[in-house]
Amino acid sequence: MTNDEPVFLAACRGKPVSHMPVWVMRQAGRYLPEYRAVRAKVGFTELTRSPELACEVTLQPIRRFALDASIIFSDIMVPIEGMGVALEYAPGPVIAEPVRTLKQVEALRPIVPERDVPFVMEAIKLTRAGLPKHVPLIGFAGSPFTLFSYLVAGKPSKEFSVPRAFAQAEPEISARLMEKLADAMIVYLKAQANAGAQALMLFESWGGLLGPNDYARIALPPVKRIIDGLKDVGVPLIYFANQCGGNLASIATLNADVIGLDWRTSLGAARKVLGPGKAVQGNLDPAHLFSSPENLKKRVDEVLADAGPGPGHIFNLGHGIWPETDPDSVARLVDYVHERTRA
Amino acid sequence: MTNDEPVFLAACRGKPVSHMPVWVMRQAGRYLPEYRAVRAKVGFTELTRSPELACEVTLQPIRRFALDASIIFSDIMVPIEGMGVALEYAPGPVIAEPVRTLKQVEALRPIVPERDVPFVMEAIKLTRAGLPKHVPLIGFAGSPFTLFSYLVAGKPSKEFSVPRAFAQAEPEISARLMEKLADAMIVYLKAQANAGAQALMLFESWGGLLGPNDYARIALPPVKRIIDGLKDVGVPLIYFANQCGGNLASIATLNADVIGLDWRTSLGAARKVLGPGKAVQGNLDPAHLFSSPENLKKRVDEVLADAGPGPGHIFNLGHGIWPETDPDSVARLVDYVHERTRA
Repeated sequence: MTNDEPVFLAACRGKPVSHMPVWVMRQAGRYLPEYRAVRAKVGFTELTRSPELACEVTLQPIRRFALDASIIFSDIMVPIEGMGVALEYAPGPVIAEPVRTLKQVEALRPIVPERDVPFVMEAIKLTRAGLPKHVPLIGFAGSPFTLFSYLVAGKPSKEFSVPRAFAQAEPEISARLMEKLADAMIVYLKAQANAGAQALMLFESWGGLLGPNDYARIALPPVKRIIDGLKDVGVPLIYFANQCGGNLASIATLNADVIGLDWRTSLGAARKVLGPGKAVQGNLDPAHLFSSPENLKKRVDEVLADAGPGPGHIFNLGHGIWPETDPDSVARLVDYVHERTRA
Repeated sequence: MTNDEPVFLAACRGKPVSHMPVWVMRQAGRYLPEYRAVRAKVGFTELTRSPELACEVTLQPIRRFALDASIIFSDIMVPIEGMGVALEYAPGPVIAEPVRTLKQVEALRPIVPERDVPFVMEAIKLTRAGLPKHVPLIGFAGSPFTLFSYLVAGKPSKEFSVPRAFAQAEPEISARLMEKLADAMIVYLKAQANAGAQALMLFESWGGLLGPNDYARIALPPVKRIIDGLKDVGVPLIYFANQCGGNLASIATLNADVIGLDWRTSLGAARKVLGPGKAVQGNLDPAHLFSSPENLKKRVDEVLADAGPGPGHIFNLGHGIWPETDPDSVARLVDYVHERTRA
């Protein structure tokens, strides 16, 4: 570690660090009263489109907790709106006209970030200016299969049977849609890095709904396309592979720096499959923030024991924090991870 | 194999069979027009409480397809209603008063099948009388953690954050509730076997929401209690472990005859962990029934190749069939499994 390299970025590169970095998926969110106060005044869409307010809620958890990374407040569907798809949040994304024909796929326009989502780049610049130097800012996007799932389903769904059936019934249209989404996300993520994002994260929220063969056939190729398309950007790439414990052999082939893992996937078992060249991020069950303070420490110890010693582990939850969580529990988590892992 | 032992029961015991048995989870259900015709006349609750109609819809898929097993039409919440919990289906179970206190747990009455759910035993007797000898009848119940999830949440939920948080915040009340549920399910399943069920299946729909340590601590002990409590019943025991690919080391310790696996869990990898003493059941993705006939065959071949050769495999979907499925696709599936595996 160089003296001025933030521990989060060093850990992404697998370097030794003075303490284990920790951040929390959805750390800017409804469990914070100060976030709810902002949301009492503006709707979700307005919040994502206001650089000042997006910056404010991004910084809120950084003021409260000793977090080692920040992630820009936005939503994976924001660039999809930029591509000309009309949608609303209710609260999950609801698409006015689900994309289910080749004609609709071909009509999706490529994204031009300065024209279509300038407020995201502006929010990144403002937030960078407000963050302490030791807290890097992460930019993000949704994975093609995840975006495909919302676009084809038209609304959030428990098991996304409509897009999963569509992917089997119409494999060519599906592949073309995901390819277009991949190309758009390359442009979008590059623009975030150019605006100041110091790491880029790809959220594979729904790829874990595919079995191993389908994951390799359907979800992996467009992710590989994105990661290969970003190889010259020079910032660490994080792939959050939700519920993908069965798909790790495929994921090991990706040139990502960090693989984020959900709470159901053993970090130790995953590291064996992923190999020494990739860092891991995760994976405390969000439910454990409802444990007693004493039990919370035991659960953190279990995550650390499972992941094993050595660098290349960024502590996080295994999924987004729940709105009902007590912020004091987050403070205890962050402080305990630091205390336990201080070199 | 003895000449008169149904292939399904032989496969449950790991014996060689003349062809691989196949059945389909939720094979009596909304994808069949004849089922929808019955449901147009009676509600779901009435259907579960009418032995004649439950028998009729149980037999419907047996008349249509060359299935090797039948499963009694009912719902995992039926015995819970029998224990005095008021609930409605909307369409998932909605509990009037979610169970969240020790007082409520202790007030749950033990189940007396002849008094509380006589219609289930009657439906089993009627169905046995109507089934061909080579098609055994499976009885079933929900796993304690799955029933706990519905009872604490009060309604179906995408990630069941309420019961998962409750299990962390109130571990003793949670354990006591699952222990009571286990004891009730032992009595309920024994009564089904006495009425004529030739195999018993335990549905762990939500245990896969727990990481490996929590699964071993929370969900496994009451399942073990049930399986040990049924050891003298003399019929094969099937444990369907949905989304439990990360929990197989725990599951391997259970004295179940068959482990049902979801489509995200490799049958081959699972068999290595489970060992040779357990048969496996599964695990075609329900989405694959939307493939072209040619691709469906390829997907079946993949399941067979993954599971590997040798007895002890019962073909099934990896989850319940979707209501939008074309019944002709089910016919093609069943016939192809038989054709491909005929000795």
